[in-house]
Amino acid sequence: MKQEHKPATVLVPCPAVLVSVGNEMGANIITLSWVANVCSKPPQIAIGVRPNRHSFGLLEQIGDFVVNVPSEDLLEAVITCGTKSGRSIDKFATCNLTPEPSSKVTSPRIKECPLNIECKTLQVIELGAHHLFVGEVLAWHIDDKVLDEDGEPDIAKMRLITYNPLVGQYWSLGTHLRGR
Amino acid sequence: MKQEHKPATVLVPCPAVLVSVGNEMGANIITLSWVANVCSKPPQIAIGVRPNRHSFGLLEQIGDFVVNVPSEDLLEAVITCGTKSGRSIDKFATCNLTPEPSSKVTSPRIKECPLNIECKTLQVIELGAHHLFVGEVLAWHIDDKVLDEDGEPDIAKMRLITYNPLVGQYWSLGTHLRGR
Repeated sequence: MKQEHKPATVLVPCPAVLVSVGNEMGANIITLSWVANVCSKPPQIAIGVRPNRHSFGLLEQIGDFVVNVPSEDLLEAVITCGTKSGRSIDKFATCNLTPEPSSKVTSPRIKECPLNIECKTLQVIELGAHHLFVGEVLAWHIDDKVLDEDGEPDIAKMRLITYNPLVGQYWSLGTHLRGR
Repeated sequence: MKQEHKPATVLVPCPAVLVSVGNEMGANIITLSWVANVCSKPPQIAIGVRPNRHSFGLLEQIGDFVVNVPSEDLLEAVITCGTKSGRSIDKFATCNLTPEPSSKVTSPRIKECPLNIECKTLQVIELGAHHLFVGEVLAWHIDDKVLDEDGEPDIAKMRLITYNPLVGQYWSLGTHLRGR
């Protein structure tokens, strides 16, 4: 038997990423779960951001962003960057995160994240409480530490985080079920 | 040290859902990973679909869809519905899945999935290889079997699947890290 419920954002499981945006004058980090690969060619990622967030103005001003995929050991930073505002604190300093230059965009990458995806904003779509920034992937970077002996990405080594808005819980990944 | 790579859809981890679309004349199921909650109010989900897919025409024609979240025991159906075309097989029959009526949309829900999210298409955005269908969530349904003793959703009982396009692998969820 199933129970019916009123509309809500209940899709699970979701990624939990740190999006960095800014330039040498200042950069911010925002934790987002409203994020997905949305197009394969050209590769594009969409992120949903509320207009009242500090990063929203930076996204509009800079025109690019980096999607940084954190490991489990960055969970504290994921929570801080999702609950504090960049208007009142420097999130890089507060979370002991290190900005490093991107190769194709102005916004910095986060050194401590094993995977960084550089995106240039193509369009911004107003949806309601959130606006959707659709960015083209211009480059991505992966840390040697999360590669296997053949030089391929190793999901186990990445120790990925999922966010489950249905219950407001972060969960780790478990085991490899299928696929090459 | 990090290695730089050329543009690709490498965001991980991603959901893997079964999207059902159709009416009593016929319905199809498509496995999608290009999917996210994208707006909280009104609640909206976006799905990226290629125009050459059988479900694409149905999505345009019907104007609504259901995002069905599968459990691990439906992994075989997830793979079949992502690799076979509804032009040549009846995916409900082939995968032993049961259509059940939705309460707010025309497209059927999939009975065997513990979570069904009914969506009405608000807009379709052309991105390139994929078009993005943005749907407003009109209702969602959850199976009693995946509720805990307080009647709240229990992520462990849902046995969720993630897809990791970086390596083409399905992974299960692991352990509860944080959150209420």
